Amino acid sequence: MNRLDLDCSEPKPVLVVGSVAFDNIVTPFATGERILGGSASFASLAVSYYAPALLVGVIGNDFDERHLDRFRDHDIDLEGLQRDNSGATFFWKGRYHENFNQRDTIELQLNVFENFRPELPDSYQDSTYLMLGNIAPGLQLHVLEQMKSKPYVLADTIDLWIDVQKEELLQVVSKVDLFVINDSESEQLTGEKNIILAGARLLDFGAKAAIIKKGEHGAYLFHPEGLFALPAYPVTELRDPTGAGDSFAGALLGCLAACDSTSFATLKKAMLYATATASMTVEDFSCDRLESAGADAIQGRYDELVGMTQL
Amino acid sequence: MNRLDLDCSEPKPVLVVGSVAFDNIVTPFATGERILGGSASFASLAVSYYAPALLVGVIGNDFDERHLDRFRDHDIDLEGLQRDNSGATFFWKGRYHENFNQRDTIELQLNVFENFRPELPDSYQDSTYLMLGNIAPGLQLHVLEQMKSKPYVLADTIDLWIDVQKEELLQVVSKVDLFVINDSESEQLTGEKNIILAGARLLDFGAKAAIIKKGEHGAYLFHPEGLFALPAYPVTELRDPTGAGDSFAGALLGCLAACDSTSFATLKKAMLYATATASMTVEDFSCDRLESAGADAIQGRYDELVGMTQL
Repeated sequence: MNRLDLDCSEPKPVLVVGSVAFDNIVTPFATGERILGGSASFASLAVSYYAPALLVGVIGNDFDERHLDRFRDHDIDLEGLQRDNSGATFFWKGRYHENFNQRDTIELQLNVFENFRPELPDSYQDSTYLMLGNIAPGLQLHVLEQMKSKPYVLADTIDLWIDVQKEELLQVVSKVDLFVINDSESEQLTGEKNIILAGARLLDFGAKAAIIKKGEHGAYLFHPEGLFALPAYPVTELRDPTGAGDSFAGALLGCLAACDSTSFATLKKAMLYATATASMTVEDFSCDRLESAGADAIQGRYDELVGMTQL
Repeated sequence: MNRLDLDCSEPKPVLVVGSVAFDNIVTPFATGERILGGSASFASLAVSYYAPALLVGVIGNDFDERHLDRFRDHDIDLEGLQRDNSGATFFWKGRYHENFNQRDTIELQLNVFENFRPELPDSYQDSTYLMLGNIAPGLQLHVLEQMKSKPYVLADTIDLWIDVQKEELLQVVSKVDLFVINDSESEQLTGEKNIILAGARLLDFGAKAAIIKKGEHGAYLFHPEGLFALPAYPVTELRDPTGAGDSFAGALLGCLAACDSTSFATLKKAMLYATATASMTVEDFSCDRLESAGADAIQGRYDELVGMTQL
């Protein structure tokens, strides 16, 4: 185990629900084939640098031990990872445009994900930190209903759900402590181009706090106690942005769980750790760099971010 | 006089050289006709909140007392403002696109600016802070040659000069302490899309430090002692971005002159004051909001920026 020392209390576990997938990724410079992807994969690995991660998702008959070992090596609890031998693992093929700001879905095979309903093991139902990674909002609500505790909930989404399950998504937003979304999606969901007004709308929708991510331009936190904004970590070799948002959200919630605090001050610090962690993910395909980075390198980037933003 | 109290030494004067103009501005929402513009107008007004400003530029036979009084009201020294009665003041008509990120020049009348060569009054030649606002790089070099002191020099430019006077512009860059440019122009000048690599190139070109401005996404300072990055002030009512860059540069140099310090620490603080000051400019046409803002409101926005960026 390779965990950052945040000098806080004993870390609380973080329950992560989301997709586990195989991706084919085409960038202007290279291609990755059948590489590990999915919101829960990136998020749970990111969590693992800060706190114990419990993974809920589904894999098919083609998901081998080699990939399971990648989670085990980060001490990720797999009791909630269902295997469905009736088909293959969820598969996504995407292509990034030249500036990496846009991507197109070229192929999508739901496979075992088509019939997936996340069911939480008993021991997971009293978790105090819950990440609803990117899956259908209806499934996110189904997870919330199973919680016996009143966890601190972070939810993430993508543009697809704004198009096809907006009503359920707004229900999710209204129930969560922290809603995380990127800038183009926030405009799509709120109708507001201006990020400050869009953030205010997300709180109007009922989220207790919200983060709007702007990719290479950083991220904004909207919180009842105020606004906090942060530039991105200065990455010079962007290789594959897939999973950056999931890594950001996982690290952020992991950091809160590590300190067992959800105060505005802890959230600010967690924004820096999340940015440092996600900057690793984009430097290589799949979870490769995120997995291999190590706690010291992430702490180093956090320290750099402090240096480049604090007076 | 309405000056911010930075709790530093006695402010040093700032010599500002640039254009004074009348603008017609067309935005998607409104139009401003024959309004005060020009790099030196915005920059000297911005300086005036921090330090005494000395203005060098040229006006034509249509520039009336009413507009001169706008400078006088801010105690801007006009000894270096030449009047050329042979023609009209420099005129520019521009139209902004819907997102305000791009603008087109619709009409340009050089008028008295065509034969303008900035000549510095004797008393200006030993200034210790010099802003070379946006004018032809050849004229910026002509100003540098007249200086008897070795001033701290900030230079600004626009895309036009990268197209038509790149060699002279690179000479300017190589001679200045702080080169300020926006992100699209920095890509045009350095060939680097990545802002971190572009900033490094500007230092390779000989600038002792450089700032790349990203508009609504903030600004980056590249300095031998390190990198500093700042988000934009959260403006929700953008009316006319004309002059934002000039106001930013003027306020930044004014802040250094107010503290008579060009250390990395002072530069960081000056980036926040520059951001706060420029945020005023964009909220109305011309220099209107910049002029009327007042020191307290600018200090208030600086304090807000501290709140939204510091842990």
